[in-house]
Amino acid sequence: MKKIRMGMVGGGRGAFIGGVHRMAAALDGKIELVCGAFSSDPQKSKLSAEDLGIHPDRSYGSYEEMIEAENRLPANERMELVSIVTPNHLHYGPAKMALENGFHVICDKPLSFDMEQARSLQKIVEQSGLIFALTHNYTGYPMVKQARVMIKNGSFGKIRKVVVEYPQGWLSTLLEAGDQKQAAWRTDPEKSGIAGAMGDIGTHAENLAEYITGLKIDSLCADISTLVEGRRLDDDGNVLLRFDNGARGILYASQISAGEENNLNIRVYGEKGGLEWRQMEPNTLLVKWLDQPSQVYRTGGANVCPEAAAHTRIPAGHPEGYLEAFANIYRNVAHCITARNEGSTPDPLYTDFPGVEDGVRGMQFIYKVIESGKAAEKWIKF
Amino acid sequence: MKKIRMGMVGGGRGAFIGGVHRMAAALDGKIELVCGAFSSDPQKSKLSAEDLGIHPDRSYGSYEEMIEAENRLPANERMELVSIVTPNHLHYGPAKMALENGFHVICDKPLSFDMEQARSLQKIVEQSGLIFALTHNYTGYPMVKQARVMIKNGSFGKIRKVVVEYPQGWLSTLLEAGDQKQAAWRTDPEKSGIAGAMGDIGTHAENLAEYITGLKIDSLCADISTLVEGRRLDDDGNVLLRFDNGARGILYASQISAGEENNLNIRVYGEKGGLEWRQMEPNTLLVKWLDQPSQVYRTGGANVCPEAAAHTRIPAGHPEGYLEAFANIYRNVAHCITARNEGSTPDPLYTDFPGVEDGVRGMQFIYKVIESGKAAEKWIKF
Amino acid sequence: MKKIRMGMVGGGRGAFIGGVHRMAAALDGKIELVCGAFSSDPQKSKLSAEDLGIHPDRSYGSYEEMIEAENRLPANERMELVSIVTPNHLHYGPAKMALENGFHVICDKPLSFDMEQARSLQKIVEQSGLIFALTHNYTGYPMVKQARVMIKNGSFGKIRKVVVEYPQGWLSTLLEAGDQKQAAWRTDPEKSGIAGAMGDIGTHAENLAEYITGLKIDSLCADISTLVEGRRLDDDGNVLLRFDNGARGILYASQISAGEENNLNIRVYGEKGGLEWRQMEPNTLLVKWLDQPSQVYRTGGANVCPEAAAHTRIPAGHPEGYLEAFANIYRNVAHCITARNEGSTPDPLYTDFPGVEDGVRGMQFIYKVIESGKAAEKWIKF
Amino acid sequence: MKKIRMGMVGGGRGAFIGGVHRMAAALDGKIELVCGAFSSDPQKSKLSAEDLGIHPDRSYGSYEEMIEAENRLPANERMELVSIVTPNHLHYGPAKMALENGFHVICDKPLSFDMEQARSLQKIVEQSGLIFALTHNYTGYPMVKQARVMIKNGSFGKIRKVVVEYPQGWLSTLLEAGDQKQAAWRTDPEKSGIAGAMGDIGTHAENLAEYITGLKIDSLCADISTLVEGRRLDDDGNVLLRFDNGARGILYASQISAGEENNLNIRVYGEKGGLEWRQMEPNTLLVKWLDQPSQVYRTGGANVCPEAAAHTRIPAGHPEGYLEAFANIYRNVAHCITARNEGSTPDPLYTDFPGVEDGVRGMQFIYKVIESGKAAEKWIKF
Repeated sequence: MKKIRMGMVGGGRGAFIGGVHRMAAALDGKIELVCGAFSSDPQKSKLSAEDLGIHPDRSYGSYEEMIEAENRLPANERMELVSIVTPNHLHYGPAKMALENGFHVICDKPLSFDMEQARSLQKIVEQSGLIFALTHNYTGYPMVKQARVMIKNGSFGKIRKVVVEYPQGWLSTLLEAGDQKQAAWRTDPEKSGIAGAMGDIGTHAENLAEYITGLKIDSLCADISTLVEGRRLDDDGNVLLRFDNGARGILYASQISAGEENNLNIRVYGEKGGLEWRQMEPNTLLVKWLDQPSQVYRTGGANVCPEAAAHTRIPAGHPEGYLEAFANIYRNVAHCITARNEGSTPDPLYTDFPGVEDGVRGMQFIYKVIESGKAAEKWIKF
Repeated sequence: MKKIRMGMVGGGRGAFIGGVHRMAAALDGKIELVCGAFSSDPQKSKLSAEDLGIHPDRSYGSYEEMIEAENRLPANERMELVSIVTPNHLHYGPAKMALENGFHVICDKPLSFDMEQARSLQKIVEQSGLIFALTHNYTGYPMVKQARVMIKNGSFGKIRKVVVEYPQGWLSTLLEAGDQKQAAWRTDPEKSGIAGAMGDIGTHAENLAEYITGLKIDSLCADISTLVEGRRLDDDGNVLLRFDNGARGILYASQISAGEENNLNIRVYGEKGGLEWRQMEPNTLLVKWLDQPSQVYRTGGANVCPEAAAHTRIPAGHPEGYLEAFANIYRNVAHCITARNEGSTPDPLYTDFPGVEDGVRGMQFIYKVIESGKAAEKWIKF
Repeated sequence: MKKIRMGMVGGGRGAFIGGVHRMAAALDGKIELVCGAFSSDPQKSKLSAEDLGIHPDRSYGSYEEMIEAENRLPANERMELVSIVTPNHLHYGPAKMALENGFHVICDKPLSFDMEQARSLQKIVEQSGLIFALTHNYTGYPMVKQARVMIKNGSFGKIRKVVVEYPQGWLSTLLEAGDQKQAAWRTDPEKSGIAGAMGDIGTHAENLAEYITGLKIDSLCADISTLVEGRRLDDDGNVLLRFDNGARGILYASQISAGEENNLNIRVYGEKGGLEWRQMEPNTLLVKWLDQPSQVYRTGGANVCPEAAAHTRIPAGHPEGYLEAFANIYRNVAHCITARNEGSTPDPLYTDFPGVEDGVRGMQFIYKVIESGKAAEKWIKF
Repeated sequence: MKKIRMGMVGGGRGAFIGGVHRMAAALDGKIELVCGAFSSDPQKSKLSAEDLGIHPDRSYGSYEEMIEAENRLPANERMELVSIVTPNHLHYGPAKMALENGFHVICDKPLSFDMEQARSLQKIVEQSGLIFALTHNYTGYPMVKQARVMIKNGSFGKIRKVVVEYPQGWLSTLLEAGDQKQAAWRTDPEKSGIAGAMGDIGTHAENLAEYITGLKIDSLCADISTLVEGRRLDDDGNVLLRFDNGARGILYASQISAGEENNLNIRVYGEKGGLEWRQMEPNTLLVKWLDQPSQVYRTGGANVCPEAAAHTRIPAGHPEGYLEAFANIYRNVAHCITARNEGSTPDPLYTDFPGVEDGVRGMQFIYKVIESGKAAEKWIKF
C-alpha cells in the first residue's frame, strides 16, 4: 500500500479544525501529510510546518504557491489531495485552483462563503471528475450509518417525524469581543457569510437529518434570532420542517444554550417505530418499537449492518469518538483515490462520504432559513 | 385531623384517569371518597361504587342526583369536594353545578370542551370563592418545583430559550377504529373539542413551560398535523414560541412518535446556565452551567428548596413517581380546604396547585395553535 | 368490596417507615387503618392517632392493649390485620401476640432481633395458618417480577453470575452521635441486633438476589467492617457468594458510600444473556444478549409478563416508584385476606409477597455474614 | 519536530491489538512506523508490512533480525522505539533484546509470561536507563486523570471504599474450540501464563484502582472460577480487597458476563464524597458529594485539572475514546524520547504513563489472586 500524499491549506498554530483534519488523516496510516500552506502569515506558516515535521521545502506561504510548486514535482512525489481547513470565505479559492490543477479535495463545511461560489464549485467539481469531499463528519459515525440503513430498509415503515437538534452553549456571552479566534471569525459576516449558528452547526443538523432519513426538506419556517446583544450574526434558530414525503420535522441549532457542549442529536419516527442517536454518546443507537421493547444497537455490536461495521475499528465497548468518525471520511477518500490510482473499483462499503452536492444543499439551507427568519409568511419552499 | 369527604364524577369501570385520581386522593390519608356518580350508565355506576367500597346509598346515577342528594345530608356528612374525571365535554356541567352548590372542585384537564365554557367557568369560580384545582399534574413533581424556584431566583439569569416536548406513540395506528375506549373519545371532536393531541398533551407542555419559567407565551407559529389516515383530530404538532420576555421556544407534542411512552421533557436556558427535566425519570433535575460542571439535583437530595422538599414523601433514592406528583395536588387541595374549615391560614408551601386561570390559558393555547396550524401568516398572538 | 381493617404498631410522629406503610396500605383503597398503638409514649401515640384521623377510642397505648381491646369488638368491626413498623427488637412481641389472637400480620424487615425469635415466629406462623408478610418491598417492583420470570423461564440459560449491591452514604459520618432517630436505633445493637448495614440493607440485597434468580446462597465469604470511628455496628460489607447451582456472586451493602442515595441494583448473567435492574430507576429492566442488541423492558411496556403487568397501575411512561412497589405487598395481602374471608381462591397473580421463610433466611444471612466477617477460614456454609 | 521512528514486533494480519497500537502511535503525527517483524510467519510478516506501507527492506522475519539490522543503520535512520504487541509469552524476548540494544520499548500488558520474567525485565529496564512503557491504556483517559488528581488533592477525604469491575461477555461460550485466534491464545496457559481473565483484564482493573486512588492493595481474598466447561484458564474472578490505608474493596473481572461488552468501571468513596467512572462512556466523571448535588465532570469541560486537559485533543462534547486514551501513552512516550534526544526536560504534564513497576505489580496480582483462588484461608498478603 502506498500512502496518499496530502497538502493542507490553513490549520496553522492557533487553529482548531486543522488539527482535527490532521489527526483524522493520520489515524489509519493511509495518508501522509507532505506539504502545506498553513497560514496566510508566512512566518506562522513556516513554524506550523516545522511543528508538523514537514520538510521546509514544502512549507508554502500561500495555497497558490503550494499548488504551483507541487505541480512542478514528479508525479510520484507531488501531493495528490488538498485538505482545506480555512474559514468559510477562504474555501472557494483553494478548492477551485486545486481542482483545476488536478488535485482531489477535502474541504471543511459549509462549502463556501455564498451561494454563487457553491454553484460555481459544483460545476468545477463535476467538470474535473475529481474526488471532492465535504467534512460533514457526523455522517461518519457507525451508528449514523446503521440508522440510515435501517430506515432505508423500511424497518420503521414510512417516516412521519424528524427532530434534529444541535445545541451548544459556548457563545452564550459576547466571546468575540475578546481575543477568542474561533468566536471572532464565526460571528463575522465577512468571514462566515450570511449566517452564524445556522451555517456553522445548523447545516450539520440539516445534513444529518437528510442523510439518515434519505428524505429531502421540502419547505421550512424559521425563527432565527441573535440573542446575545452586540452579535452580528444569528446565534439561535428554531425551524419547522416539512419533508418531501410529507413527514413533519423540527430543527433546532443554537450556540446560546448555556451549559450544552456539542449536543447534536436526532430522533426519527416511522409508522412502526423510531430511533434516537446522540452525538455525545455516539456508539449507541436506541431503536424504539411500537410493540416490542426498545433495542440498544451498539458500535461493533450484534446485528449491525455491514455499512456500520465497515466504519468501526475496534470491538464493541471500546468507545470510538469524533476523531474516528472524522477519520472515516479521510479513510474513504483515501480508499477511492487508491482505487482510482490502481485502476480498480473501490469497495462500495468505502465510498460513502459527503460531496459537493451536500455542500450546495447546505448553502441552500442557509439561504432559506435566513430568508424565512425575516419573512412574514409561514412556509418557504426549500 | 378530619379527612376531607370527596365525591367523584366519572371514573367507573374501564376508565383510566379516574383510578389515578382515586389513588392520588387516597395516598396521604387526608381525603375519603364517600360518594360518586361513576358512570352515565346507572348499572355500571352502581357496580363501580361497589368495587370501591362506597355505600350503596351514596352511589348515584348522575352528577345532578349526587349534588342534590349530598346537599340534603348533614353538613358534617356531606361531601365537601367533587372530583371530575370525565371526558372533556363533560367537565363543565358538573363543575358549574358543584361550585354553585358550594362544593370545592378538582377537575381533570383540559378545563372544558370549548373556550366559552372555560370563560364561564372562570367567572363561576371567582364568584364562588371556592377552591378549584385543575390536574396539570406534572407541576406536582418536586424537581419541577425546584426548577421553577431556581429560575425565579435568577440562578440562570434572563431566560433565553425553552424547549418543551411531549411525545407519545400510542396513537401511531388508528386505534380508535377498534374498541379502545381511551383512543375513541380522545380523537372524537364531539368529546375532545377542537383539538386532539394538542388538547390532550399539548396543554400539559404549555402549562409546564409557563409554570417552570414564570414566562408567558406571547405569540406562536404552529404546524399541526393529522398523520394517521382516517383520524378526525390532530395527532402531531410542532410549535415555535416567543415568550413575553423575548425568549424563544419550541413546543412539540405528538401521539404518533412510535415507541415513545410518555416522554414529556423540558429544557430551559438562561444567560448563565440551564436545566433539563424528564418526566420519565422525574426525580432528577440536571442543572447545567456555563462555566461549572453540571449538577444533578435529586428529589429529597442535597440543596433542594423548601418548595421541592414539601412535596417529597420519602428520602432521596426512593423513587417517587406520577401518582405521588398527582397526589401532591390532592394533598394541597385538602390542606387548603382544611385550613378554610378551621379558619386558619394555609401553609404557603402547600397552596401550590393549578387553578382555573391555568385552565383558561390552556384553552387559549388550544385555540391559538389550531388557528395557527391553518394560517398562512407566520405569527399568531397568544 | 369491603376494605380490610388494619391496626398499626409503631409509626408515630417522627418515625420514617410507618408513614411508608400507611401510604402503601392506603394507595389502592383496599385497606382501612382503623386503630393503632403508634408509640410506646402514650401521649405521642394519641397525638399520632389524631394526625391520622383515627377515632380516639381506637388509639391504644401499647400493642397488648390494642390486641386485647380489638378482640373485644364485634368481628365485623375489629381489625383483621396488624402492621408492625417498629425497630427490629420490637417485631417479635406484637407479631407473636397478633398471630396468637388470630390477626394476620405485615411486619417490617428484618424479621426479628435474633435467630431464636425468627425460628419461634416461623413456628407460630405455621401453626396459626394466618397470613404473614414481610416487607422486603423491592420484590414488589414490576420489573423485578419480570426479571424473576425471565430467569425462571430459562431465557438466559443456566445462571452463572450474580452481582447485587446496596450502597447508601447517609451514615458516612457518626450521625448517631446527634439526635437523628433513624441513625440512633439502626446502629444500636440493643435495637438492631448483631448487624448494622448488613441487617438493615444487606438482607434486602440477599432477598432480592434469591427472589430474582430463584437460587439459594450455598456459602459465603465476607469482609465486614465498621469504617466510621465510634460506630457500634458494621457499616460496610463485601461478600463473595456461591449459589446452590454453582453460580458465583458478589454482594455489597454499605452505608458509608458517600454520595450514594439508595442505589440498590442487581445484575445477573446466564449462558445466553443477562439482566440489570436499578432501584433508583425501577421502571427499566435492561436485558442483555450474547448475540442480539440489548433490550429495554419497561414497566407497563411491550412484552411484559402477566406477573409484572399485574403489579403495574398506570400506562408505561408514567413512572411508578417505591411506594407503589411497597403497596403491591399490601394490595396482595389484602387480596388474600379478602379471598379467605369470602372463601374463594385468591388469583395466583396476587399471592406473591415475602413471608416468614424469607425472614428466617434473612436472619440466617445476618448470622452467617457476621460469622464470616470474623473468620480466618474462607468459606462459611450458609 | 522530528518524528520518533518506531519498529513493531507482532501485529500482523489477523491480530487485534497491533492495529490499536499503530493507530494510537499515528494519531498525533509524532511517531513514524518505519519497520517491523509483524509475524513469526515470514510470508505473513512481509504481506503485513506491505499493507502498512513499510519499505520491504525494513520488513523483518523476526525481532532478532529486526534489532540486528536496525542497529546497523545510521543513527538518524534507525528505529528508536520498539512496540511489542505479541501474546504474553512473547513479550520478554523482544523487550530484553531491544533494551539491551539501546531501544526504548512500549509493551502490551501484562508485562510477561511469568513472575521471573517480570522481575528480570524490571532489572533490565532499570539498568538500561531507557524508557519502558506498558499499555495499561485506561489510565490514558482524561477523566481517569481527573479522578486521580481529585483524590490526591483530598477532595473526598480519606478513601474508604473502592469497587472496580471489568465484565466482558465474549468468552461465554467455548470460543477457543473454533478458530477465533484471540480466544485461542488468551485461554491457552502456554501463551497466556497462569491466568486467563485475571491476567487479561483483571490486571487492568487492578492497575486502574491503584492508579486512581494512589493506594496499594495490601491483601486480597479471591474466588477464581472457570465457568465454561472445557476452558483451561479462569474466566471469572471476584476478589475482596484491603488497601494499605485500610480501605475496603471489591474487584470483579469476568469474560462470561454474557451481554457485557467492555464494561470496565470504578467507584471510589471517601469520607466526603466519591466518584464513578465508566469506560464505555469515558468522557464523563460523576462526582458525588455527601451534602451537595452530584457533579458531572466532562472531558474538556469546566473545572478540569491541567493533567486531564493535557490529555484532551478537542473541545468538550466531541467524544474522545479508546484510541485517544491509548494514543496518550504513545504521545507521552514520544514526548519523553524527544526531550531526551534534545537534552531538554520533558514537560511534567506529558510524562505520565505506566511503566515496568506497574507491570511487576500486575504480575504479582495475577500470582496472588490465583493463589488465593486455591487457598482455604481467607486473606493472602499481596
